[in-house]
Amino acid sequence: MSDFRAELGDIPVDDHPRIVQQRSRDHYWYSPVLKAKLDHVTAEIVVSPRSNDEVKTVLAAAYKHGVAITPRGAGTGNYGQAMPLAGGAMLNLMNMDKVLDIKSDRVRAQAGAVMEQIDNQTKAAVGGELRFHPSTYRMASIGGFIAGGSGGVGSVRWGGLRNLGSILGLKVITCEAEPRELDLEGEDILKVAHAYGTNGIIVEAEMPLTASYDWVDMVVGFDDFMEAARFGREVAAQDSLLVKEVSVYAAPIPEAYFNRHKPYLKDGQSVVLLMVAPVALAAMSLFISHHKGDLRYRSDTASAEELKRLPPVYELAWNHTTLRALKVDPTITYLQTRYPSLEHLEKMTSMLGDELPMHIEVTRQDGNVTLSGLPLLRYTTEARLDEIVALHEANGCDVFNPHRYTLEEGGMKRTDQKQLDFKRQADPTGRLNPGKMIAWENPDFDFKAGKAWLFNGLNPVGPA
Amino acid sequence: MSDFRAELGDIPVDDHPRIVQQRSRDHYWYSPVLKAKLDHVTAEIVVSPRSNDEVKTVLAAAYKHGVAITPRGAGTGNYGQAMPLAGGAMLNLMNMDKVLDIKSDRVRAQAGAVMEQIDNQTKAAVGGELRFHPSTYRMASIGGFIAGGSGGVGSVRWGGLRNLGSILGLKVITCEAEPRELDLEGEDILKVAHAYGTNGIIVEAEMPLTASYDWVDMVVGFDDFMEAARFGREVAAQDSLLVKEVSVYAAPIPEAYFNRHKPYLKDGQSVVLLMVAPVALAAMSLFISHHKGDLRYRSDTASAEELKRLPPVYELAWNHTTLRALKVDPTITYLQTRYPSLEHLEKMTSMLGDELPMHIEVTRQDGNVTLSGLPLLRYTTEARLDEIVALHEANGCDVFNPHRYTLEEGGMKRTDQKQLDFKRQADPTGRLNPGKMIAWENPDFDFKAGKAWLFNGLNPVGPA
Repeated sequence: MSDFRAELGDIPVDDHPRIVQQRSRDHYWYSPVLKAKLDHVTAEIVVSPRSNDEVKTVLAAAYKHGVAITPRGAGTGNYGQAMPLAGGAMLNLMNMDKVLDIKSDRVRAQAGAVMEQIDNQTKAAVGGELRFHPSTYRMASIGGFIAGGSGGVGSVRWGGLRNLGSILGLKVITCEAEPRELDLEGEDILKVAHAYGTNGIIVEAEMPLTASYDWVDMVVGFDDFMEAARFGREVAAQDSLLVKEVSVYAAPIPEAYFNRHKPYLKDGQSVVLLMVAPVALAAMSLFISHHKGDLRYRSDTASAEELKRLPPVYELAWNHTTLRALKVDPTITYLQTRYPSLEHLEKMTSMLGDELPMHIEVTRQDGNVTLSGLPLLRYTTEARLDEIVALHEANGCDVFNPHRYTLEEGGMKRTDQKQLDFKRQADPTGRLNPGKMIAWENPDFDFKAGKAWLFNGLNPVGPA
Repeated sequence: MSDFRAELGDIPVDDHPRIVQQRSRDHYWYSPVLKAKLDHVTAEIVVSPRSNDEVKTVLAAAYKHGVAITPRGAGTGNYGQAMPLAGGAMLNLMNMDKVLDIKSDRVRAQAGAVMEQIDNQTKAAVGGELRFHPSTYRMASIGGFIAGGSGGVGSVRWGGLRNLGSILGLKVITCEAEPRELDLEGEDILKVAHAYGTNGIIVEAEMPLTASYDWVDMVVGFDDFMEAARFGREVAAQDSLLVKEVSVYAAPIPEAYFNRHKPYLKDGQSVVLLMVAPVALAAMSLFISHHKGDLRYRSDTASAEELKRLPPVYELAWNHTTLRALKVDPTITYLQTRYPSLEHLEKMTSMLGDELPMHIEVTRQDGNVTLSGLPLLRYTTEARLDEIVALHEANGCDVFNPHRYTLEEGGMKRTDQKQLDFKRQADPTGRLNPGKMIAWENPDFDFKAGKAWLFNGLNPVGPA
């Protein structure tokens, strides 16, 4: 490690144990399973380059001296993406936060630029904004979102990050004797998007912009959860009703966990959260009353004092829901699911009841309005968690397991050959984020056997 | 009629027979059935008011003297919407063509404003454009589109004109002793949208704007029609790939009727026409090559000379396809259909072959990618036309018959109670566009009997 440090020149480095420990954490602790496995994990130092050249210097040194590198944005991921399983160095990219170029329909920024900051600049310059962002919009970096995210607020209209056209270009730096800058476009983007930084360090991203709006937050109550879900699905199917967020929460989630909004809620109601374009407000009000929705709150008529006190609804949504529940009840965790129809959703909610308080994010996938689930889970044991996953699968509902820290187990449950091939070129010695790509570590792993994979480095006293 | 004229003051009036005849026509003649029924129809004069007050003067005079009023924009409708079945006066609204107000997300214009002109102004002012327009964009008025249209270029993303939120507000003038100006919002809009001006004269419209783009035209060839259709459907299902137009044409439509584009086409190929946002071009090129499409033309790399010579692709699409075919072969007409799936489409095309050269407009309806058909039809007899309609219906494919001049027969085949109720208030003596709303003329008409309704006024020598 000292040989590695000696090559870094004046690149900022931090080895204060508390800082390093802090920067060695993402939001893996939403999962009790990941918490048990990863709590002891830490890097040795944090390196914070300020330019592409400095990133190259770091990666050349890591290659030369065999130091593991775990890239990190704001550390807001939930799957242990940014947990340094093999120790080594955290590569903090938040000093590389410049917006490089704004055009009428696209923006190019450094990886560490915070998404809200990007939008502030593009709104001012061209009246445009990013198509989607995670609920951690005010903290998360664009590079981290691309490396570890899949969609979010805006997915109800624009689909997912991995869809063709959602990312226009990426610049990545390889980990070799002489690190290269590679500009990826078109389908090459999928080689490194959502690869957790295992096969190249994303240093710049070019993203499409869409027209920006002063989105209006709405909270709509329904006495029955399935009425709320039906309404949510219907809203998203109205092509003419411009929305950026539609999500559905079964009682008692709202009253129990949406603390600041509590004065606006009615106990026992399930709730739909909306972000609505001003141009769609009149039509939306009508649509809500047609569906006998109970409009509990709308930000366009709120007082300045209310607006100051209340978080935007996107900070109740996506994994902020889980975060807010965890703050109240530390035994809670969550699942990621997909319900093929309202009937599937109804079956699973009636089967699991309050053990799985339901949270639906309505999205578009391949042109279809889709019920993506982020249900809370009143956690008891890992065995029961696995049972609930199996129950979903037995009933034709997909589960994307957020209690796994590898790319494959949380995602498609198979090797992504393009990502693996690219890692062979861009990180031939496996320095980058070790332990996250099973295909690299153990090409023979049997995804169908149903056992979680354990990275050797996590078990230093003996083989897994 | 002279009493009526005497009340008009200096409002421009024209009674030159050739002019009146010309202005008494829309594009009803796309249908041989309508052509036979409506060819003799003409008004007696054309009145061209320049303000809301002048419209009121005209309508008060019509009310008082029992003169039929047929409102008219550019006369680009295809269903005889603007044919003066009962004679009387044409109300030409093209002198009322001002854009009244532009905001960042909406525009308010007079009914006679031409859509391309509106867009020119909104693009310059706020970088916005109308969500959709007909293929007659460069001629058609916004009022005519709302009164007689249902969607068009842009419907692949935004759905239809009658969807909630597609029209923000309308100002209509009633036909009474003292005509009133009524401002309609929310669902009241549906009382007069697509009512052919039978229950109030639309004089102003407020419409949502969306971000404007320099849309790129593309022509993509496929050796097999079903491959083209599959590609068209898939493109529209890519939420991340921003398009404004996706349409599919079976061979030999392109080579036979797209004359100016002929140098770019390959004989025997079926074709998909696209309008693509510049931000989606790279992804679209990739998507085309994945689908083994043959990219025959793209406007972003065309020379200035080519761009001058070639019409925009939207002037090959929607009912411009029919128009171009009719210019080459006057025996051709068309149908309006909807195919629930690619399998339905394949079945009907293989069943009807070259008697029904297929033309699909890919649209969104209720959140779903939809195959809307505007197939050409090699017309022989009305009996055979009815047979083809029946064949569609027997195979689970909807037909919206464009060979009918009434609201109900071309549309939902039932009374629209809201439109009828509104006519009772806004046009109590039935002066406005007589003969177009069956529910008004003959409340007992049986839509299920399968017989076309005939307006009495069309048959002046005896009862229908």
